[in-house]
Amino acid sequence: MFNFVFHHPTRVIFQRRGLTRLGEECARLASKVLLVYGRRSLKASGRHREVCASLATAGVSWLELGGISPNPTLSLVRRGIALAREYGVGAVVAVGGGSVMDSAKAIAAGACVKHDPWLFFRGKKSIKRALPLLCVPTLAGSGSECNPGMVLSNEENGQKIGIGNRHLYPATAILDPELTCSSSWRQTLFGAVDSICHLAEFFCTDPSPHHRLQDRLAAGLIRSIMESCERVRPNLNDYPGRATLLWASSLALYGLNSAGRGRIHFPAHLVAHALGGRHDLPHGAALAVLLPAWLKFEAQRNPSRVAALAQAVFDLSASDASTMATRGIRRWQSWLRGMDAPVGLIDLGLPPGPGELEAITAHAAPQARLWRLPYSEDDIARILALAAA
Amino acid sequence: MFNFVFHHPTRVIFQRRGLTRLGEECARLASKVLLVYGRRSLKASGRHREVCASLATAGVSWLELGGISPNPTLSLVRRGIALAREYGVGAVVAVGGGSVMDSAKAIAAGACVKHDPWLFFRGKKSIKRALPLLCVPTLAGSGSECNPGMVLSNEENGQKIGIGNRHLYPATAILDPELTCSSSWRQTLFGAVDSICHLAEFFCTDPSPHHRLQDRLAAGLIRSIMESCERVRPNLNDYPGRATLLWASSLALYGLNSAGRGRIHFPAHLVAHALGGRHDLPHGAALAVLLPAWLKFEAQRNPSRVAALAQAVFDLSASDASTMATRGIRRWQSWLRGMDAPVGLIDLGLPPGPGELEAITAHAAPQARLWRLPYSEDDIARILALAAA
Repeated sequence: MFNFVFHHPTRVIFQRRGLTRLGEECARLASKVLLVYGRRSLKASGRHREVCASLATAGVSWLELGGISPNPTLSLVRRGIALAREYGVGAVVAVGGGSVMDSAKAIAAGACVKHDPWLFFRGKKSIKRALPLLCVPTLAGSGSECNPGMVLSNEENGQKIGIGNRHLYPATAILDPELTCSSSWRQTLFGAVDSICHLAEFFCTDPSPHHRLQDRLAAGLIRSIMESCERVRPNLNDYPGRATLLWASSLALYGLNSAGRGRIHFPAHLVAHALGGRHDLPHGAALAVLLPAWLKFEAQRNPSRVAALAQAVFDLSASDASTMATRGIRRWQSWLRGMDAPVGLIDLGLPPGPGELEAITAHAAPQARLWRLPYSEDDIARILALAAA
Repeated sequence: MFNFVFHHPTRVIFQRRGLTRLGEECARLASKVLLVYGRRSLKASGRHREVCASLATAGVSWLELGGISPNPTLSLVRRGIALAREYGVGAVVAVGGGSVMDSAKAIAAGACVKHDPWLFFRGKKSIKRALPLLCVPTLAGSGSECNPGMVLSNEENGQKIGIGNRHLYPATAILDPELTCSSSWRQTLFGAVDSICHLAEFFCTDPSPHHRLQDRLAAGLIRSIMESCERVRPNLNDYPGRATLLWASSLALYGLNSAGRGRIHFPAHLVAHALGGRHDLPHGAALAVLLPAWLKFEAQRNPSRVAALAQAVFDLSASDASTMATRGIRRWQSWLRGMDAPVGLIDLGLPPGPGELEAITAHAAPQARLWRLPYSEDDIARILALAAA
């Protein structure tokens, strides 16, 4: 096991109807906050009223920034930073999916500096502090509520970049499984695929066969996520399934699955971000197509870890690693198809037009450099070709 | 899943040769500390010199309290509290096994109050604050380095009681697997049994079949601990095995295995504490005998959870829960025997003399009340009878 430091400062409140605690938890952080949310569902579901009532009861005053879209954009983050500065808010509160929470993180960090927030994403400036964050996920998947990462799209140049910094751990996360019941099956599945992808990428980019403790934690979470998808699909209000999806997705990126593994990578996420920067796709939809493509690519180079994942998740066995890896990928794709997920780029409405794959490949390059991910443009092109097949 | 709050403040530094960081980490907490350690091994191994050198280099001054024994005693804790008060130390540093860390916790809490520390253990006073703690485990097992619990023996009345309080989370834990290499096979095995016991008791006292995420985490850790025992036994210096044992034992009581399970219990620990209060036995030796006895007792009342554990750890299957539970317990006992663990009270040198089992049963009663554990004296007597069989 490699050396590591593990210190997770987020206070997690896992509570059915936990939204009622939002105000009192906010009041522990600041008396004036910026409330960030998405485009429609918070207001449509009536939750927006509940949020406001809880804040008001606790004596917290707030400003609002709604309208955050999937693949959240730099322009709205800049507006949030301007608001936060102008009104001197003491904390940022996010109620929404990964894009809302990630935008809130960028605002929380950007409000503490004078330069443009995109410089963080270009690796030109580092985050030294951030306003305290309170995150309330309404979709299980990104795990952003319990981790120090954020992803942002720059609509000016089509780049979508993810970075991490320990000042971005939310101070508080309120996990209320009931809030996720309003997610459609499509959104739910894409969130689940995102979480599984986090776990599978950690697992397969760790070359060591000796980290079986971490392997077992990852496989246990993947199995629980798949099982919960099967429960939730016929009944979107299934509480035990929603609760497991929410907690498992938080734990997937909590840091425990990477601790001790040494340097691990996110190659499928790399390509998904490049795709998401150019096309307004749900992140999980891109990953549903790219995870099998990347696993095939990886299995061609070194099948042993893909085979180990197949064994751990599906109890498969085979005479050689290559066969086991192939069978595992097939099982995974067949599960995805059974869940109505897209399986090829064409299902995403992306028939690879002339030059399009090259453009995506070129977009992935800056993120690969930032993540110090040893993937050449040729590697990325091969993964995209496998996703198009 | 039940509601829970999860907030783990301990900063974990998992590092080969991490002892060299002790001084600088101490200096973050206080400039004058109380150093607590055990009876022999720290000095015999030369580690005591390393500890002192690291503290001195970092400019930390310290007082020492050595000689903590397994089943740590109230009298030494009282002496530590007197020292800590007299010299106004700002933190307590524990380098040793569970008993050393637990004594340090009792000193850290006791130094902040005027009353006798045993009142905490009788439930007469609650812990409102404690000096910051830095724990360096030299044996994998108790998980005390990453949890808010402590166990103490009162040699005046033969009681051994465990309690928990969130002020007892160590501020820092330095996990250096190499430090555990000097543990004998017997000590190593007893530590492993302690960790497995924590996980198995959580698993089986949770009546719900729906917490499969937690079940999988627990089973994954148990499998990793057993596998690592098999590696370490023929080679006590096996680093990967020692590293896994250390991290798995910390994670076993980290809180993740209980989060969401609702109210869970420690019945085997209850009886082991009663035994350890009257006889100076290694805690893990008592548990090696008592875990199978308690599992048999539990399987007679409600075999379903014991069967689920057997399935998750040993991949067993059977037509009914009772048969599966019985097979699982048999597998566990056969593994223990293969590892040279004691299997009956008689192996502990405790042939149940006249009145002895009754005395142990009577000693377990106050702890059962404190833990609100719904076990009658008759239940405890039955578990002891199964352990004597």
